[in-house]
Amino acid sequence: MTTGVRRRMGVEERKQQLIGVALELFSHRSPDEVSIDEIAAAAGISRPLVYHYFPGKQSLYEAALRRAADELAARFLEPPQGPLGARLLRVMGRFFDFVEEHGPGFSALMRGGPAVGSSTTNAMIDEVRQAAYEQILAHLEVAHPSARLELVVRSWVSLAESTALLWLDGRRVPRAELELQLVHDFAALAAVSAAYDEETADVLIRILGDEPADGPFGELVGRLLVLAPQLPAQPLR
Amino acid sequence: MTTGVRRRMGVEERKQQLIGVALELFSHRSPDEVSIDEIAAAAGISRPLVYHYFPGKQSLYEAALRRAADELAARFLEPPQGPLGARLLRVMGRFFDFVEEHGPGFSALMRGGPAVGSSTTNAMIDEVRQAAYEQILAHLEVAHPSARLELVVRSWVSLAESTALLWLDGRRVPRAELELQLVHDFAALAAVSAAYDEETADVLIRILGDEPADGPFGELVGRLLVLAPQLPAQPLR
Repeated sequence: MTTGVRRRMGVEERKQQLIGVALELFSHRSPDEVSIDEIAAAAGISRPLVYHYFPGKQSLYEAALRRAADELAARFLEPPQGPLGARLLRVMGRFFDFVEEHGPGFSALMRGGPAVGSSTTNAMIDEVRQAAYEQILAHLEVAHPSARLELVVRSWVSLAESTALLWLDGRRVPRAELELQLVHDFAALAAVSAAYDEETADVLIRILGDEPADGPFGELVGRLLVLAPQLPAQPLR
Repeated sequence: MTTGVRRRMGVEERKQQLIGVALELFSHRSPDEVSIDEIAAAAGISRPLVYHYFPGKQSLYEAALRRAADELAARFLEPPQGPLGARLLRVMGRFFDFVEEHGPGFSALMRGGPAVGSSTTNAMIDEVRQAAYEQILAHLEVAHPSARLELVVRSWVSLAESTALLWLDGRRVPRAELELQLVHDFAALAAVSAAYDEETADVLIRILGDEPADGPFGELVGRLLVLAPQLPAQPLR
């Protein structure tokens, strides 16, 4: 991503190049540890020239985060075809790609801290969460969710975040297993709400009805039913 | 919590009183909006005297957060008797009490931001999460969890946090329902892992074996089995 070429760039081109260089650096180490001098060196320009384009490190950090946020939101886009389980699994794959590419920067941002936390960065995080939420609702084909269904979807977005952060911290479970687990977690959280909320139950039954038996959801149901006989008595049956 | 009494207090007593007054104010509004002048007025002392005990707002905020963190961690303590579902439900009740008592301050802290985020506050948040994690492991009677079981417990702690934050933002679902839902979510997340991880399956079967049919877990299983016939075919049966 860095360039030693010193040809003359236009203002916008130079800004975009600086943002790219900064994002690369902010992704691979905690933003605290990245200096303007390093960014200047990686971009092949002088420190004063960096300040010509960005008033300080925070504004450059926010511009880099803006690009990362747009990139992440774009990865949530998935054609509305085929079983939902497979769609969610593909999105999880792209989400973990993103997390892997931006690991240390993602951790630093999501764990907060003086160098990264600001109302601007928090607003961008919320915007990405909102984009994820809206994408999932679109796939569920629900325009106006009940309070419980909204909670299921938002909680799951938050669970995907925290699972990715826990994964980055040691990588003790292979990421492919976590991607699948998160798809299952979605079904599990929806099932809990479905037990009490009719709208969530309708959505769940509609979705699962379209699932192939060998898809991620069908496989989970099969495995859970193997466990079921060992569970406590069920008075509602 | 405020006092107009101006009798002479000892140093430690005065500090503890100031922390209590500050925690009250920081709990009910975003900490950004609380001034040292207000804290001084609520404590019935002069502004310079506040600075005599605490060098600035951030140090007073951190002392107040220290007290809140200890208080919250104490609420996780639950005698290791009786079915696990009922224990978790009591803990969730006390957790939501805490969230309700400290609502705006809890939101501001957990959503990050310039006035509240620091490495000290982040360390306290992590410490409370760790206390919750260790309490749950103790109730599960597991000393050395598998990577997947660890992930289940830590993810659930994070889910409880995010559910509480979503609840504070509009309170569209009654909190008692969310407390129960979180207990169910724990079983659901554990069940997903149990489908793939033997240790989690053993723990889940052991726990659920002790559950009464009319407890929170037994009720959920009953309701889910009513939905099961509408789910896709299960090749593993």
